[in-house]
Order: sequence, then C-alpha cells, then structure tokens
Amino acid sequence: MATKNAFYAQSGGVTAVINASACGVIETARQYPERIGTVYAGRNGILGALNEELIDTGLEPDSAIAALRHTPAGAFGSCRYKLKGLEENRAEYERLIEVFAAHDIGYFFYNGGGDSADTCLKVSQLSETMGYPIQAIHVPKTVDNDLPHTDTCPGFGSVAKYIAVSTREAALDVASMAETSTKVFVLEAMGRHAGWIAASGGLAQAHDGDAPHIILLPEVPFDQQRFLDRVKQTVEEQGYCVIVVSEGTRLADGTFLADQGSKDAFGHVQLGGVAQVVAQTIKDNLGYKYHYAVADYLQRAARHLASATDVEQAYAVGRAAVEFALAGRNAVMASIVRKNDSPYEWEIGEAPLAEVANVEAKMPPEFISEDGMHITGACKRYLRPLIQGEDYPPYRDGLPQYVKLQNQLVEKRLPPFKAG
Amino acid sequence: MATKNAFYAQSGGVTAVINASACGVIETARQYPERIGTVYAGRNGILGALNEELIDTGLEPDSAIAALRHTPAGAFGSCRYKLKGLEENRAEYERLIEVFAAHDIGYFFYNGGGDSADTCLKVSQLSETMGYPIQAIHVPKTVDNDLPHTDTCPGFGSVAKYIAVSTREAALDVASMAETSTKVFVLEAMGRHAGWIAASGGLAQAHDGDAPHIILLPEVPFDQQRFLDRVKQTVEEQGYCVIVVSEGTRLADGTFLADQGSKDAFGHVQLGGVAQVVAQTIKDNLGYKYHYAVADYLQRAARHLASATDVEQAYAVGRAAVEFALAGRNAVMASIVRKNDSPYEWEIGEAPLAEVANVEAKMPPEFISEDGMHITGACKRYLRPLIQGEDYPPYRDGLPQYVKLQNQLVEKRLPPFKAG
Repeated sequence: MATKNAFYAQSGGVTAVINASACGVIETARQYPERIGTVYAGRNGILGALNEELIDTGLEPDSAIAALRHTPAGAFGSCRYKLKGLEENRAEYERLIEVFAAHDIGYFFYNGGGDSADTCLKVSQLSETMGYPIQAIHVPKTVDNDLPHTDTCPGFGSVAKYIAVSTREAALDVASMAETSTKVFVLEAMGRHAGWIAASGGLAQAHDGDAPHIILLPEVPFDQQRFLDRVKQTVEEQGYCVIVVSEGTRLADGTFLADQGSKDAFGHVQLGGVAQVVAQTIKDNLGYKYHYAVADYLQRAARHLASATDVEQAYAVGRAAVEFALAGRNAVMASIVRKNDSPYEWEIGEAPLAEVANVEAKMPPEFISEDGMHITGACKRYLRPLIQGEDYPPYRDGLPQYVKLQNQLVEKRLPPFKAG
Repeated sequence: MATKNAFYAQSGGVTAVINASACGVIETARQYPERIGTVYAGRNGILGALNEELIDTGLEPDSAIAALRHTPAGAFGSCRYKLKGLEENRAEYERLIEVFAAHDIGYFFYNGGGDSADTCLKVSQLSETMGYPIQAIHVPKTVDNDLPHTDTCPGFGSVAKYIAVSTREAALDVASMAETSTKVFVLEAMGRHAGWIAASGGLAQAHDGDAPHIILLPEVPFDQQRFLDRVKQTVEEQGYCVIVVSEGTRLADGTFLADQGSKDAFGHVQLGGVAQVVAQTIKDNLGYKYHYAVADYLQRAARHLASATDVEQAYAVGRAAVEFALAGRNAVMASIVRKNDSPYEWEIGEAPLAEVANVEAKMPPEFISEDGMHITGACKRYLRPLIQGEDYPPYRDGLPQYVKLQNQLVEKRLPPFKAG
C-alpha cells in the first residue's frame, strides 16, 4: 500500500491528557513509516486545516513527542470552531479535503467530543463523494464524559480525580475551622449539561457523614428549601457542610442558578458564579460563614494530579486510532470497553461514528440518590476505577516540566481560504 | 528533672503541613518519656485549653502520629480566637495556666502565626508572675509568610508551589484556546495583607513572555488604566494574558478591589470576588473573553502537591520546639535560617517571641518589579527554594489516605469556664 501522510487535530476544551492521545497517535504512526509518512497537526485544531496551517510533527524529536504524554492542554492549539452543516457550508468541508489532497493526507485523526465526531463523520462521507479517499478516525476527548458508546472519555478521569482529591482536602480544612469560623464550603465544578464532574466529588466520601455532604447536579432541578434544610441539618449534625456544585445546576424552570446571581455596578449580569450564588443563599438564609472555590481551568489542566488510568486510556485511544486506520477502518471512534469494575479491566473497542455524533451521554437516574443531592453506590462503582493510579510528571526546581514543541508550519500549497 | 506533660495547639487558618509540625512535636516528645509525659492537644486550638478539652495524643499509635506528616489541615481542630490583651481579659490567661496546672503541663507548644506568638509570650510572662512555670515555645505556621525572624513560615512553601504549578498548568490551557476562545485568565490567590502567595505564581514563568504576565499585589495600589494597557499589550503580543491576583489587592484609597464588585438581588455586597472584579473590568473595557479561578481553601489544603522542603521544615520546627523546651528555653520561636539560596541550605534558629509577636513581614520593595505588576529576580531567588521537592501522600483507590485521629478527651478536673 502507498504511504500517505496523516492529519491530527485537537478540538474544543483541552484536558490534562489530550496530549497523551497525541503522543499515542504520533508514536504509533512513527512505528509504521512505510505506511504513514508525516503526521501533520492542525495549528489551533481544525482551523489549521482550513487555513492550511499544518505543523510538521516530524521535526520534533522522539523525546519531545514522548513528553507530550505528561504535558497538559493542547500542544498544537485547539479551537472552539464548529463546522456548520454540510448543506449550510459545504465549502468548508471541501476545503478540508482540498488541503488534505494538497498534502497527500490519507488519514484524519480528530481528537475531541461530540461535535468533532460529527465533523469527522462528514469528512469521511464527503471524501467518498469527492473521490479523494480519507480515513477519518475519531479520538475521544472530553472532561464532560458525555460521549456515548465508550465507558468513559479520556480527560474525564483526571478531572474527576482532581475534584475528588480537592474535595477531600478542602473538607479537612473546613472541619478544622468550623468551631469558630467557616461552616460551609462550596466547590464549583465544570459541567454545563451533565453532572459527571461534580458527581466525582462524591468519591471523596469514605464513610457516612464524610464530605461532600451535598452534590448539586444539572440533572436535578434545584429546590432551594430542601437544599437549605439539608445544609442546616448537616451543620447541626457534622459541625460543617461541604457542597460540590455543578456549574450547570438549574432551577425547575431551566434557568441556570449562576444567572440568578448578582449584577455589577454597570448592571452587567455576573456569570460563572454558581458557587457564589449557592454560598450567598446559605448565608442569607442560615447565616453560616462560608468559603467557596471555583476550580475552573485548574481542574482540567491539573496534569500534576492526573489519573494514571486516564493517561493510559488517552494514550491507548490515540494508538488504536492509528491501528484502526492501518487496518482500513473509517468513520469510527476508538472507544473504551469496561470488562470489570474491580479490579478495573478494560479494552479498546470500536464505535461507528454515525452512532456517536451528536448523542450526549447523561448521568443515568440510578447514579443519582433518591433525594437528588448525592450519588449512589452504583455511581461510585462506575467512577472509582477511572481515578485509579497516579502518573506524576517530572519536576525540576519544584515545578512540573512540560514540553513546548517547535510547532513549525509546512509551506502552503494552496491559495488562502477565509474560514468562518 | 521531673516529668511534665505538654500542651500543643493549632491556631488560625490551617495549612497543608501544620500537622507535620504536630508530628514533629509528638514524635520528638515520645523520644523523651523521662522528661515529657503526655502530649495533650487542644481540641479546636486554644479553646481546648480554655474549655479544658484536652485530647490525649498518647492514645494514638505511632503509625497514626507518623501519618500526620502527610495529612493536611488541623488534625485536632484549630480556631480563629484571639485572646484579648492581658489587661482586658486577664481571666483567660489565668484560666490557661489553671488548666495547665491541673494537668501537670509544663510545656506549651503553640503552632500558629503572629497572634499566637503574642499569646505564647503572654502565657510565658503570666506563668512566672503566677508562680506556675510554663515553658512556652512557638511553632511558626502561616500560609501568608508574614512572620519576622524566620526565612519562611511552614505552610507557605506548599501554597506557593500550588499557586505556581496551577498557574503554569492553567496558562497552557489558555494558550491552547486563545485563538478562538478565552484570552484572559485570572487566578485569585490568598493574601489579605501581603502578596507572598500571589507573588509565588511568578515562579511559573520559565522564559520572558511566559505566564503569568501580570501579578497584582496588596503592596501596590491598583491602577486600572495602566493595568488595562498591560493586558491589551500582552494579548496583542502573546495572544493571551494570565493574571494572578492577591485577594488583598486595593485601590489607592485603600478600598479592597473585591469590595468594588457587585451587589446581589438583595443589595448585599458580594465579597471575596476580586478575580471576578478584575476579569469583568477587562471584559467591560477590552472585550476579551475570560475565565477565572478562585483557589480558596484548595490552595492551602493541597497536601497532594506539598513542597517537600516545606514538609521538612514544618516537621523540623515542631521537633526543634520540643528540643528547645528540653533545653530550658522559654518564650522563643523555632525559626528557619537561610544559609544559601542555591542549593538551598537552612538550619533551625531561635527567635525571641518579644521580637516576633505582632510584627508583620511584608514583601520588601526590591522583590516587586518597577512597574509594580510582577516580581523581580531577587524575589524568585528567594521563593524558588521554598517549593523544591515533592512529598506525595500515600494513595488508595486513587485518593490520598489522610489519617483521622481518635481525638479522645481526658477527664476534666476543673469547673467549666465560659470563653469569649
């Protein structure tokens, strides 16, 4: 078979382990020089293909590629750029294929969530009709854990570990101070549509009564009175109360709790402050002194606390994507298949992109406790394996040593294209 | 010499390593059973002495005491309770000495910041006039790094490491996304009066142009226009801008920036939101998309990312306090004396409490860059050794295993006392 080049791009919000998938793709491709020529990476994701800004990863030494495994965020740049539907903007898809053709690219590895699975599928379909065959393989990534047909999404296990560890640590702090000071602590976790990340805070709980005492999820409408009653009861029984709240928590009418918040001096609504809204609601109604933390990017960038399982899976789906391509597969996603909970056993699977694209995996009802304010044992059994193991980056002078690639672009061969 | 019991208490905000000091005190005391009988710990700090709630640490096995070294927060409870002046409330000091006398306590180890140094000194002075001799030794602790006569305060090195690592990681995330999404990231660090913690974010910077691009300190009045100009310049040159802001950052008139913020629907001022205020100011004036994180308790509880140097020093000041007591010292603090920057060399010193109590160590002007928005090389040389080394706690099932002590109280021998 002829040698073809490959294109790899990172899409959407980055994670602590998306570069481990890049590492898996590139290291595996380098093992098959007779089949795969150069792996080009898109500068800032799919924009790199549209703008013909292709990074020549062949210029990076093996040591730099290996270091991607322990480097968080997107080493080639990512983007929030959703290609429109094929009917609305066929020109963008055609441009992708023109760029691929101009650089003799036969393999398209797209590392992202649901949107990128959809793009990946459309590129595969269009390439057939345009007569330039592209094998499009999706490499799953999302901290939100919302892709179907996979046990989990690489990126999630590490953010879950971060939230669980942070909850456990902050809870010890609050417990120490509660007698004379802070009685309520609120930790805001990511998750606009699904509560997986906030739910993972529940793993911090080793025994009944341990923190977190309450978990607020987007799946359960916020009932202020029931919530306040529980906070009061918890403070009276335990001396303090720790709450993990998902940024996507809503009222029964669908309004985000964060949007209930405050306006600044100019009348602008302050967004992104669900922790503050929850804490202030407690203060106003129960009078307890509070502290709150907003983990924001810290949670998804925290490679220093990555789950070893997550790192391994992120690498494995990258490697599998290349192996699928070499085996002639197309329009599929490399997935994780769970064989056993404890000990955790898993293997790589293959999911057709037609079944992955635009489907959102929510938390199943049996993972949420009956009162709607915590997770169940079944949920813990599901989550626990995903945070297993530590995979520390190398340190120098007290700081993790993350690699910075050269990211040299190859010469353009096509006229410019205006994306968007 | 006669055997005397000891009293140990934790004071004020807890840290990732204050229990390592407790470990140093108790393990060292156990090596001298002929001199030190039982170490009693105050339940919730000094309140435990006032209320005669004494925890019998002698009931804890050696393994549990050893595990304190890797367990964050205050294992016996801490408190925010400042004893009044000797003239205003002599009864409280007399009560302390009565409790000490009732339990044959001859050594008082007080683990805290400036306030507790003052208390420690007063107890020592009063015990002489009351004719019941107490050797009072101060064990330094504060994340704020604001004690004089010591190179650093145990607790600070670990929070500094947390802020430096988090800044480096989040900056990689923002850099990945900046082309199409977030261009500005603001990390809020603790430090109401001194900028040491925010300053330590500057260690994340390996090269010119690296994040953090701006550090806002309480020591430098906030100049909005100069700040906005710098943000704009940074985004134009680097593509993104990362800011570390101290919670204590103020305007020229002394108002906290956080207090400039928003009011909620009930007209309450929202506090603790300096990151949000800074981010919103940028959005309003420059239009950049932002994210912000509020590390709050996560930063000072993050034992998973503790500085090995900090852990070692925390243990060492605990051990030294006992050794000072056995050597007949009184009204002193065990301090850290720096001998060399690189490699970092330090030894234990001894500072008279009269010189420590109620003195606040601020950042020296030569540690702040001329423009007031960053730290100098001298500051980095000072800070760098303090975050050296990793000291990971043991993990099980993906989570750090922190010890929970039995904390059994000894029988009371005195009538109740109403503190406060």
